[in-house]
Amino acid sequence: MKRIVFMLIAAVILACGVVFTNPAAGRANEKAAPTYGIKLPPGYRDWKLISVAHEEGQLNDIRAILGNNIAIKAYRDERLPFPDGTIIARLAWRYVPSEENNRVFGRPQSFLAGPPTNVQLMVKDSKKYAATDGWGDAQFEDGKPDDTALLKTCFPCHEPVKARDFVFTRYAR
Amino acid sequence: MKRIVFMLIAAVILACGVVFTNPAAGRANEKAAPTYGIKLPPGYRDWKLISVAHEEGQLNDIRAILGNNIAIKAYRDERLPFPDGTIIARLAWRYVPSEENNRVFGRPQSFLAGPPTNVQLMVKDSKKYAATDGWGDAQFEDGKPDDTALLKTCFPCHEPVKARDFVFTRYAR
Repeated sequence: MKRIVFMLIAAVILACGVVFTNPAAGRANEKAAPTYGIKLPPGYRDWKLISVAHEEGQLNDIRAILGNNIAIKAYRDERLPFPDGTIIARLAWRYVPSEENNRVFGRPQSFLAGPPTNVQLMVKDSKKYAATDGWGDAQFEDGKPDDTALLKTCFPCHEPVKARDFVFTRYAR
Repeated sequence: MKRIVFMLIAAVILACGVVFTNPAAGRANEKAAPTYGIKLPPGYRDWKLISVAHEEGQLNDIRAILGNNIAIKAYRDERLPFPDGTIIARLAWRYVPSEENNRVFGRPQSFLAGPPTNVQLMVKDSKKYAATDGWGDAQFEDGKPDDTALLKTCFPCHEPVKARDFVFTRYAR
């Protein structure tokens, strides 16, 4: 059972491409991700914050979820499904302890964003991505799109949150 | 020793006001924080992301550090000291596990932003806050400024990072 669980985790990590490297601030990439033809949007590093999260295990990252203006407006208006043009960007960094902060706190308790690991995008286009309920996915490592055909398997993982238009992240008030 | 460490932690938490509640998105507050006369800036929830972090222990939060345009420019230009007008905002939320995500991952590994806990501000004004090396601090809980005189003791905690103009957070590339 434990083995199955780990294989499942590995499958999810590979399939949903949760470990990729994010590029320098605002750097756009001209290369399109192969599966959905999505490019890294210019200025995404400047987008507004949706929420933050931490993944343990093999991911071992701390992440910020940002949204373009269409995404942010939809979140704040609690509008579902998300309108076409919505782009949600997940930026992740290696999860690292902060010795500097821990000295101030007097105990090991502080964890920060280390080196960048990944950027994932969810792009809403109800016509273009009709086959995947209107969402196209992309993954970028150091600004370069992920080549794997496994990207196609991202979508099924989002099925449990179909009621929220397949988006896991909730807006942090 | 353990007792001293815990007392130190308690002192830091009280003094630096690391547990406060953040208001709804973009809500400004007309009341000024008592110690430095700082108000919650309108639209701070829309500011750009500097970095993310997680604090264990009594804080038990996950946080985003945002900056106004002056702060972001200074960070990206690696400009030190930060220029007057810089405002750095720490928003924190209760650190909560996500059962929803864990089911997808097949193991308990996912932690998200729960209810808001605090907003802290660092405001740079080299004349107004000359006595504290140019920085004024403020803390807001549910949009209301913290009343405690302990706010005055925020500043000494930042002494270890004097070389970075007393700012702990580094920009997450």
